[in-house]
Amino acid sequence: MKKIIGTSLLLFGMAVCGQSKEDSIQFSKISIEILNNGKAYTDLKDLTKNIGHRLSGSPAYEKSVKWAEQKLREAGADKVWLQEVMVPVWTRGKESLQIKTADGKWKNLKMLSLGNSEGTGGKDVAGEIIIVKSMAEYDKLTPDQVKDKIIFFNYPFSQSFVETFRGYGDAAKYRVTAASLTAKKGGKFAIIRSLSSAFDDVPHTGAMRYEENISRIPAVAIGNTTADELEALLKAQKVTAKLNSNCGMKGEKLSHSVIGEITGKKDQSVIVAGGHLDSWDVGEGAHDDGAGIVQSIEILRTFKKLGIKNNHTIRIVCFANEENGVKGGIQYGKTAKEKNEKHLFAIESDAGGFTPRGVALEMDDEKRNQIKGWSSLFLPYGIYNFEGRYSGTDIYPLRDMGVPAAELAPDSQRYFDIHHTEEDTFEKVNRRELLLGASTMTQLIYMIDKNW
Amino acid sequence: MKKIIGTSLLLFGMAVCGQSKEDSIQFSKISIEILNNGKAYTDLKDLTKNIGHRLSGSPAYEKSVKWAEQKLREAGADKVWLQEVMVPVWTRGKESLQIKTADGKWKNLKMLSLGNSEGTGGKDVAGEIIIVKSMAEYDKLTPDQVKDKIIFFNYPFSQSFVETFRGYGDAAKYRVTAASLTAKKGGKFAIIRSLSSAFDDVPHTGAMRYEENISRIPAVAIGNTTADELEALLKAQKVTAKLNSNCGMKGEKLSHSVIGEITGKKDQSVIVAGGHLDSWDVGEGAHDDGAGIVQSIEILRTFKKLGIKNNHTIRIVCFANEENGVKGGIQYGKTAKEKNEKHLFAIESDAGGFTPRGVALEMDDEKRNQIKGWSSLFLPYGIYNFEGRYSGTDIYPLRDMGVPAAELAPDSQRYFDIHHTEEDTFEKVNRRELLLGASTMTQLIYMIDKNW
Repeated sequence: MKKIIGTSLLLFGMAVCGQSKEDSIQFSKISIEILNNGKAYTDLKDLTKNIGHRLSGSPAYEKSVKWAEQKLREAGADKVWLQEVMVPVWTRGKESLQIKTADGKWKNLKMLSLGNSEGTGGKDVAGEIIIVKSMAEYDKLTPDQVKDKIIFFNYPFSQSFVETFRGYGDAAKYRVTAASLTAKKGGKFAIIRSLSSAFDDVPHTGAMRYEENISRIPAVAIGNTTADELEALLKAQKVTAKLNSNCGMKGEKLSHSVIGEITGKKDQSVIVAGGHLDSWDVGEGAHDDGAGIVQSIEILRTFKKLGIKNNHTIRIVCFANEENGVKGGIQYGKTAKEKNEKHLFAIESDAGGFTPRGVALEMDDEKRNQIKGWSSLFLPYGIYNFEGRYSGTDIYPLRDMGVPAAELAPDSQRYFDIHHTEEDTFEKVNRRELLLGASTMTQLIYMIDKNW
Repeated sequence: MKKIIGTSLLLFGMAVCGQSKEDSIQFSKISIEILNNGKAYTDLKDLTKNIGHRLSGSPAYEKSVKWAEQKLREAGADKVWLQEVMVPVWTRGKESLQIKTADGKWKNLKMLSLGNSEGTGGKDVAGEIIIVKSMAEYDKLTPDQVKDKIIFFNYPFSQSFVETFRGYGDAAKYRVTAASLTAKKGGKFAIIRSLSSAFDDVPHTGAMRYEENISRIPAVAIGNTTADELEALLKAQKVTAKLNSNCGMKGEKLSHSVIGEITGKKDQSVIVAGGHLDSWDVGEGAHDDGAGIVQSIEILRTFKKLGIKNNHTIRIVCFANEENGVKGGIQYGKTAKEKNEKHLFAIESDAGGFTPRGVALEMDDEKRNQIKGWSSLFLPYGIYNFEGRYSGTDIYPLRDMGVPAAELAPDSQRYFDIHHTEEDTFEKVNRRELLLGASTMTQLIYMIDKNW
């Protein structure tokens, strides 16, 4: 297309008057500054390409701690420090999954062990595969039918929801519970269809959980096309699977969340913005959650660059260990309570660096309605949705202490194509989409700092 | 991130009652059908990978005519036909741009001649480069300063607008007018900085226009990093450029737009939905505008599949020659007038296959407000913006005849990274984003068919 659209486009909501004119001007300054001079995108390139993925407890995570410390200083933080936190150490090691059909030949399948899963200790574990398409189907199987078998949970990610987080929420129980469910009936290990909105062969890892006092058997994920092929095979014949893996939990380790702040001019009550510094051990942790980290640092940089005098302390938290323990978030909440720090507000960005569409709000109706009252300021920036009632995983301890909590709500269509995979790389992040998310967070924090 | 969001998310706007409950159910059926069974994505793969780019007048365009005819039949059209239209034949041929600096060595620059530009006839044309950063700077140059020179218009695509179409609109005059402006003062050819929102080295082509009675000198585009490097060079020294190109207009040719429809049950007044079948001669014409074509065909398929009885005729038009002449759109309007066909509404999708955010409306206030009155039905699908007052390029002749006209308004952040380039490929299109756009168009046409 070649037509040229004039300046009338998308100016709706711009006509604000009185007191909010000042805010409207400030919103515009923030957006223009970030879209033109934002460092989030080049910071993300640095983090993903020079450090890469960074699971809690790994040497790469420790590198990212130094990196975040330096970036917060460069952004102009008055104070930067590390918060100690004990994190679990889970490692993957070598792993393979093979299947054997009637022809007697073993064939390798692309796979990833699920995060937190125990492996086979480097030994082959084999058995016949039994496929189930749903929990209801699995529930009908007797222990006799499951004993010594491999259970393949082939539940598809629903495409029917407009918001892909709903498809993810719908399917996530398979990832979280497959191993213990299989173990309870005597199965050897579990295979799940990846929690993926894409039609490709990329396996998705992500956290699983063992129930107490249930045998800790392995759980692995396969990509969607492999899952479809395996289902087709199983319709025609018996298939044996053989897993050999070395993953497992290797105790705990002292690690750190990274915190930087600009001190409040009026008081030291705290506004928190953050993301999680750790990622899964595949890909580059670009959307999940390098994006949230660099967007949060951008907020601080922008306040300093534009010379906005913050009334309250604006604190950027790069949380440790969201992916497999949330120990960073829990420790932050605990410390805040011990120090009796007053927190005004907390926001996390952890849904990918895609074009922002809104902010989810988890707080009382008074605060909620106050923020919604600012919506005409946000509309020219494509931010229209303040209806979500949830907040970031790392700030749930703050929320539980009564702190108004929020999460940036970007467009969700592409997230679960690449979430927890080798494909979550810098190349999948668009510069302007990432920067607009940082701009939305900065604008909201500007309003909260000014009005609360 | 690993949290699981319940079903409360994004259900706002769902609480509709009375008569609109039926509409709400139909909206849901349309969305679920398209997200699960839509063919737009695989159709687009077929068009882009098996035909590829398809400039008007090229053999590839003629293949795409056959392709569209077949796809419309497969989708269930009651009637499919070709509409004759004379289109310009512009060809690129071999081309190269070189520069020489103080060291005396020639260096190749990545470049694309602008669409419709004449070339050098296969001869070398060389001269010293003069850089200008804006029209105002160029206006200050005297003919003496420009004579026999190469003018390099290095005007940057503005990053400051949230809606990238505004940045495009702001910079497009450089592409359209650079050649004639340079010719008027005696320059040899013009180089422009690409109309690109990305920071890369990908040159963007696109239509330019010659003023009447002005010498038709060549105009070419270079990528943004090459433009930055050239600017840096020119600060330090004189630089000579040498162009050798074979592009040019090669007359006209009989071609076709492709039309398919499902006949109205009540009357034969027409609702048009479409995109343009042609593309520039680089990349695969995936977002521009393969997306609009496959989305439009999806509308027809969905009406048939869901058994929606359309009151009026729903007509899908795959317009010829949007990119360098709009001859298909003009011919369609002319024929509609000659046949005295009543048109109720026309919508085009030609802004990329990205997540839809709204629909731009170019029509009288009564019709406009009626559509805006349906907005609570659209909100659960992320469609909130009905404020744009423009419509598709190919349907401007209908608009000029008083037909209410519209254009799908998807998220614009990534479009001008790849627009009119080698990078506009199938891989840049996300399945769900593309399908959601088709769903929005189908929902709107369902409402218009029912209520108008």
